[in-house]
Amino acid sequence: MMFPEFSHEAEYLEFLSRQAVLPAGFRVATSRIAFTPRERPTLEPYRMNISLLFADEPTSSFAGVFTTNAFPGAPVILARQRLDEPAIQGILINNKIANVRALTGLDDARRLTESLGRALSIPAARLLSVSTGIIGWTLPVDAIEAELPALAAGLHDGNAIDLAQAIMTTDSFPKARRIEVGGGSILGIAKGAGMIEPNMATMLVFLVTDLVIPRESARRALRRAADETFNAITVDGDMSTSDMALLLSSGVVTGVGDDEFAEALVRLCGLLAQDVVRNGEGAGHVLQLTVSGLETNGWARGIAKAVANSPLVKTALYGNDPNVGRLLSAVGDYLGSNGRAIDPEKITIGVGGETVFSGGAFRLDREKEVRLSDYLKSTALNPRVTGYPQHQRCVEVTIDCGSGSASQTVWGSDLSDQYVHENADYRT
Amino acid sequence: MMFPEFSHEAEYLEFLSRQAVLPAGFRVATSRIAFTPRERPTLEPYRMNISLLFADEPTSSFAGVFTTNAFPGAPVILARQRLDEPAIQGILINNKIANVRALTGLDDARRLTESLGRALSIPAARLLSVSTGIIGWTLPVDAIEAELPALAAGLHDGNAIDLAQAIMTTDSFPKARRIEVGGGSILGIAKGAGMIEPNMATMLVFLVTDLVIPRESARRALRRAADETFNAITVDGDMSTSDMALLLSSGVVTGVGDDEFAEALVRLCGLLAQDVVRNGEGAGHVLQLTVSGLETNGWARGIAKAVANSPLVKTALYGNDPNVGRLLSAVGDYLGSNGRAIDPEKITIGVGGETVFSGGAFRLDREKEVRLSDYLKSTALNPRVTGYPQHQRCVEVTIDCGSGSASQTVWGSDLSDQYVHENADYRT
Repeated sequence: MMFPEFSHEAEYLEFLSRQAVLPAGFRVATSRIAFTPRERPTLEPYRMNISLLFADEPTSSFAGVFTTNAFPGAPVILARQRLDEPAIQGILINNKIANVRALTGLDDARRLTESLGRALSIPAARLLSVSTGIIGWTLPVDAIEAELPALAAGLHDGNAIDLAQAIMTTDSFPKARRIEVGGGSILGIAKGAGMIEPNMATMLVFLVTDLVIPRESARRALRRAADETFNAITVDGDMSTSDMALLLSSGVVTGVGDDEFAEALVRLCGLLAQDVVRNGEGAGHVLQLTVSGLETNGWARGIAKAVANSPLVKTALYGNDPNVGRLLSAVGDYLGSNGRAIDPEKITIGVGGETVFSGGAFRLDREKEVRLSDYLKSTALNPRVTGYPQHQRCVEVTIDCGSGSASQTVWGSDLSDQYVHENADYRT
Repeated sequence: MMFPEFSHEAEYLEFLSRQAVLPAGFRVATSRIAFTPRERPTLEPYRMNISLLFADEPTSSFAGVFTTNAFPGAPVILARQRLDEPAIQGILINNKIANVRALTGLDDARRLTESLGRALSIPAARLLSVSTGIIGWTLPVDAIEAELPALAAGLHDGNAIDLAQAIMTTDSFPKARRIEVGGGSILGIAKGAGMIEPNMATMLVFLVTDLVIPRESARRALRRAADETFNAITVDGDMSTSDMALLLSSGVVTGVGDDEFAEALVRLCGLLAQDVVRNGEGAGHVLQLTVSGLETNGWARGIAKAVANSPLVKTALYGNDPNVGRLLSAVGDYLGSNGRAIDPEKITIGVGGETVFSGGAFRLDREKEVRLSDYLKSTALNPRVTGYPQHQRCVEVTIDCGSGSASQTVWGSDLSDQYVHENADYRT
């Protein structure tokens, strides 16, 4: 079983440490600095983790997918440029400040790769600088630079659980998944909690493998995996300026086929994507919503995302309230807004295996309402309180539109008062 | 001043009673019933208000605008049909259950107009049945029918404040606005709190006037007013199955010009629309967002709605946290999702008169952050606690995109834990 149930944090951390084993040819290091952000109203010291993911040798086999936000952060701009470099060797990561449109942002990112290159005795162009956190504030470049020699000196192989923890912002638990394939392995480490909507939003994913995989094959595989997994999850519909998934191969294990690798990457990214939803800020339920019976995947995914992002659907889930009328309303809202009609007679909606709408009308009675409410309670979880995900149960909702054979599944979360609290005072 | 500040609920109710004066030729009545919804998990009695808005004479001068949700409720379907009737005379309104896609929904709505027609001795086709509340549950038709003779007998002229109160669901205060024009008046009464997004979402608006206005002029005026006011507000981005605005003229005061009437209707609906936002479920701030410098109104409104609906923007407002990075991120998310780029150098963002982004970079420092936070605190309100709106101050945000002369203003609200609470257990 890829994801057992856990009753104590120690059980989850033990599971995580088995997952976070570095493939051959990679090392990691983490460190911590204190500084005073120049934009912060108060003067108390602010702490930032800096981390380094490093390959023993430069590799030409690397890939990246990035946010489609029109105002990406400096790390995204720099990484897109360096995708064309012949080889990459390391990634510097900081949390707390996202380095987006600060006056000197791109210069700051470049300067950090230069300083780190000196500390590692490699060219700056082989390094990336990745940031996550507050948008608009300035990176404490001097303080980070001063720490880089110590960071470089701390590189270790073995287990990357420290990196999975260091890159967290509002995450309630570290996320790492490993898959064995073709005689080697792929390790994925993810950061992300709120602001998760298609195309990578405020999510950082670092994928490392020891498998030999040609550069173009790696790029194709990553694009496909991102589309099928990270782009099928949504927490709050906001797509951030900073999201990216990066893949590096150390190329020490030969023999995996392109297709075999691609399939494995989809499976691995699917696990990470669901971990990210399960970690949604204040998430009390994970929604697995399958919309079927449309002519195209685009329509199916559009409807599914609209329903999964509806604040009224999300708050009802949080309250264990089977307010299924909001599901149909959200479908109708999306269709109407997109100038489309579907005969309600064709639509069937199921929640947890119970049919709640069919033949043009809701099918509800007192006993079914009680069963539905019990079902919602049975799928609740609270990683924010426990610090680990207790189980992987989802609220399973199906909406069949009876108008074609395309089908799409998305994963979303509920909307809790905890989400509001976390995001109301994120910067203080 | 159309909207003074209030320090006590009694002051607001006095203001409201001056607003809610019925134009000549109209009467209203309200009543209350208790019943047990067949879909409700518990058996406790459930209370529903029923209300009647009635013209002394049937009128051919009436208009309606409706939700664009693809699955409208039975009241919307019936009202659209009856727009073609030669005359309308009355509107029956219930709260608590929206009568959307219940098995017998359309029959129920028709049957209620027939029973009410008998009680009033007029044809059923001159009546509308309007419902707001839970989607998917069944109207208690027998219980409503039994009350209709008493409702009809209770019709009174003078003041409609009782109707403004009876149609509320999660509204925290009744909403009525009156405007004098052309020797007569227009009275607007609105219901709406959550689920308010373009095109009338879970908002009911009843507009009555004693002014003679030709049917087609009334319809043009209402379409324009709805587009410029109700379609420019957003509370949670959900568009309901039940929203509508209806306009009836008793036609006893001659002399208003079509344009004069249309202008007055826009002003009146603008006041009601802002009242609805101010009443957003758990609203702690009203956001007035002007997006300018685009080639078309469509782009300007699209960006404005996207920013106003961003959960991360909304939660930051709630927390009095000037997390202005989220404004730019939401603009970039919308642009990127719609395949468009704008040079960030061209963009200027202001909050409360302070420039926070210009020339491609954020312009923030410690002192400005303190001023911005103080500004957000000064615009906070809490109608949910006070039961009335204390003031009409907004958080004023401007986003100039430097790429054209089109400009649009939208009004939105913040996202509070109160919103989550109300919508998590709306039906219990």
